[in-house]
Amino acid sequence: MTEPAGTTYTLGDLVARFGGELVGDPTLEIRQVATLERATRGDIAFLANPKYRSQLKATRASAVILEASARADTELPRIVCDHAYLYFARVSTLLNPVLPAMPGVHASAVVDPSARIAESASIGALSCIGRNVTIGPRTRIDEGCAIGDGVRIGADARLYPGVVVYHDCVLGDRVILHSGAVVGADGFGLANDGGRWLKIPQIGRAILGNDVEVGANTTIDRGAMDDTVIEEGVKLDNQIQVAHNVRIGAHTAVAGCVGIAGSTRIGKHCTIGGAAMIIGHLDIADHVNISVATLITKSIDQPGTYTSAMPFAEHRAWLKQAVQLRHLDQWAHRIEQLEKRINELERNQP
Amino acid sequence: MTEPAGTTYTLGDLVARFGGELVGDPTLEIRQVATLERATRGDIAFLANPKYRSQLKATRASAVILEASARADTELPRIVCDHAYLYFARVSTLLNPVLPAMPGVHASAVVDPSARIAESASIGALSCIGRNVTIGPRTRIDEGCAIGDGVRIGADARLYPGVVVYHDCVLGDRVILHSGAVVGADGFGLANDGGRWLKIPQIGRAILGNDVEVGANTTIDRGAMDDTVIEEGVKLDNQIQVAHNVRIGAHTAVAGCVGIAGSTRIGKHCTIGGAAMIIGHLDIADHVNISVATLITKSIDQPGTYTSAMPFAEHRAWLKQAVQLRHLDQWAHRIEQLEKRINELERNQP
Amino acid sequence: MTEPAGTTYTLGDLVARFGGELVGDPTLEIRQVATLERATRGDIAFLANPKYRSQLKATRASAVILEASARADTELPRIVCDHAYLYFARVSTLLNPVLPAMPGVHASAVVDPSARIAESASIGALSCIGRNVTIGPRTRIDEGCAIGDGVRIGADARLYPGVVVYHDCVLGDRVILHSGAVVGADGFGLANDGGRWLKIPQIGRAILGNDVEVGANTTIDRGAMDDTVIEEGVKLDNQIQVAHNVRIGAHTAVAGCVGIAGSTRIGKHCTIGGAAMIIGHLDIADHVNISVATLITKSIDQPGTYTSAMPFAEHRAWLKQAVQLRHLDQWAHRIEQLEKRINELERNQP
Repeated sequence: MTEPAGTTYTLGDLVARFGGELVGDPTLEIRQVATLERATRGDIAFLANPKYRSQLKATRASAVILEASARADTELPRIVCDHAYLYFARVSTLLNPVLPAMPGVHASAVVDPSARIAESASIGALSCIGRNVTIGPRTRIDEGCAIGDGVRIGADARLYPGVVVYHDCVLGDRVILHSGAVVGADGFGLANDGGRWLKIPQIGRAILGNDVEVGANTTIDRGAMDDTVIEEGVKLDNQIQVAHNVRIGAHTAVAGCVGIAGSTRIGKHCTIGGAAMIIGHLDIADHVNISVATLITKSIDQPGTYTSAMPFAEHRAWLKQAVQLRHLDQWAHRIEQLEKRINELERNQP
Repeated sequence: MTEPAGTTYTLGDLVARFGGELVGDPTLEIRQVATLERATRGDIAFLANPKYRSQLKATRASAVILEASARADTELPRIVCDHAYLYFARVSTLLNPVLPAMPGVHASAVVDPSARIAESASIGALSCIGRNVTIGPRTRIDEGCAIGDGVRIGADARLYPGVVVYHDCVLGDRVILHSGAVVGADGFGLANDGGRWLKIPQIGRAILGNDVEVGANTTIDRGAMDDTVIEEGVKLDNQIQVAHNVRIGAHTAVAGCVGIAGSTRIGKHCTIGGAAMIIGHLDIADHVNISVATLITKSIDQPGTYTSAMPFAEHRAWLKQAVQLRHLDQWAHRIEQLEKRINELERNQP
Repeated sequence: MTEPAGTTYTLGDLVARFGGELVGDPTLEIRQVATLERATRGDIAFLANPKYRSQLKATRASAVILEASARADTELPRIVCDHAYLYFARVSTLLNPVLPAMPGVHASAVVDPSARIAESASIGALSCIGRNVTIGPRTRIDEGCAIGDGVRIGADARLYPGVVVYHDCVLGDRVILHSGAVVGADGFGLANDGGRWLKIPQIGRAILGNDVEVGANTTIDRGAMDDTVIEEGVKLDNQIQVAHNVRIGAHTAVAGCVGIAGSTRIGKHCTIGGAAMIIGHLDIADHVNISVATLITKSIDQPGTYTSAMPFAEHRAWLKQAVQLRHLDQWAHRIEQLEKRINELERNQP
């Protein structure tokens, strides 16, 4: 868990570490990051979105991170840099270090004797660790997790309370799994047998690369025969469903409530907006951006932004519009007829 | 948990408590509520939706709650009132009281010695309570919950099995969290650092007011810097995602599968239909109703009902319609051309 | 859990069990199933989708399952059958048997003395079993599950780690519940009481028939007064929400991220695509197929396929289309006007 920050840094320290130009007193001490609106003495705030420029005048922050275009907009001590949001992220990471857990296995945890757990790892209360599990250095498994037989987890990983990892799955270094995440459950593999569904054994695994983060209550199914693969640096928000045999390319970010159906491959460096839905067996190229609530029904081989969302309206206006939607086909016909008739009229003109 | 009702009440008791006009024997005993269709002897049913009026004739209920418009539609003993559904809700609450749990901490729970737990509170088997947690009187934490360091929970709250609350979050009095709910996980805060994602520490909290109910497997993220706030009386159904820094106003109800993206503020007394999706950084006024499966992409400053759902159709009809959707822009052009040409023809008319 | 296969079978064994025509050596030994692409020596692959026919030439599988139309497309030993996917499913089930768990109750489980647990059943570490629970023969409850008072579970069921079943619910034989599934939480029953929400006790149960499978993090609410019923053979994928009083007919399959609102009844042998949303109080006939991401707002009384999904487009194309959607009503008017004017012109033609 992120613990309250303790150490302070001077503005001079920050610029020495992260670059940028300092305007103001290098000995000024910074304790924490804050929004322009809520910052108080000892806080450093940031301006990345011009929409919040008006808050710059009123802020009580001790210092501000901003870009060159805004350098003259405040008298406060400030760090002028190229990417204020990224700079802020680095400062916040410095001020809010992840504290190491106490190494060791809690007395109430149930750990199979065949598990190989690094001495510096931490296994929380009431967690279960199965047969032949491997857990790397400094990895922290919180309370009430269940790690199935044969699972391998790298170094410096963090599993929050209540995570479940099914047997034989593999998690890389620095992986973060939030509470309620389920990795490696059976995919939805069924064959129709005269009206009844025959379950197909799901014998693949789920493999998560280094630096993958998985949000709360997100589910990643194991492969049917091959593996489900989440490549390094992928970030998944909460409430996402990743079906069997999906592959998500490195450094792709997926917002909450997204569903990705079976065997679809998503490229690297993509972004997928909240509640987007991608059907199965597609190939999505690298550097594709999918908009919020968009349904993707075909493969995409070009980078770009893709959208299908329906604009909302006040309900009565929407009702009129929705009625017309049902008549689009008739309309097409009526427009064609009009064109023919007008052609005729024009031809007959005196 | 709601236990089977034991105590019975007479119709006279009910009218004495909740008002309404009694038509029939005040000494008639009522044991339970039921639907008109399934009620048997000892049950009181209700008619709130005129659609079910036909069931009134056939019901085997001992008595019925209804409104004045339906008073003559049955010979059964009946309570005539203004809002039959609300009256029924009160009667059901009376007949199905929530029974208190046995106070005390189960021997298998893992409780940090610094936690302050009211004597009348109940901590279930195999739950974990972190450092400096405060738990109020009569609050009940069920089996297998994990409560992070510094969490404060009010009086008369109920956490069902398997709930996780991350460190430093605050839950008010009478809060109900259903199984699988996760409160206070990290928000999806990332800065792009040359193609890789840098995680931004999430140092705010999640704050739930009094009388908030949270459905099964719903997730409410902690704030990035400020807090995520769910005001008093808000009701969240299952499978909902509430992102970081969201504020939901008092007495708003949100149906299942909804997603609310970061920093959006929703007013008081709103209703949000199932699977609606609201993007980030918006302001939604009080008394706004958002329809099922609607995508909200702009702030709304007027009360009213807002909709974006696409009407469904038989698949072949839909295919025709979907094709036309792609040509809307051409059509607009063709209609304009037709108008110009007809203007010309009319001008040239003899 | 599905364990690595150990036993091998000859092609002759397979055909003797499952029928089909064998072309090739009946003594050839098969160890495992695999995709055409990844198969190696000892594997049997299958061709069910003509799209993958090109992989047939290159596969390193020892044998292939295929249909008559593809019998001449390979020289490999092969089983020719009517439904290659179903045949493959049977072979995979044979090669990947579900191994029985060690019977007995783990020492760390917390089991109420009134629970009746079959001797051949297995209760995993750190699970809680409530009062008067009944658990049938060979049923396996994994680590960290919570089974509420009065729950009845049949024979040969499997509950993966972290499943919660609320009090008094009923699970049939061979039911499978994946991790994070929550069965029997309160439905979203609220009455508006002058702007505040009054919770309505949820006194029904959730009943799951034989052979029901429930995916990870899926939620099935208990009934408000009557029961929520999932009939035999229903398969639910991950992240699904089934609200109170829903009934899902036998052998219906529901893909991930679907929401089904309260009191809706769905027929038998239906399929519901991922992220579809079905509003409350509807009746859906047997043999209905609902497409991915479709919103169903009215009852459906005819078998068939129903769709409402909005086609996606490159973002700039979509913007043009979305603007026009708002003007559909004006357009209808303009087309009508054009028709009137052209009628007039035609009438006046010399």
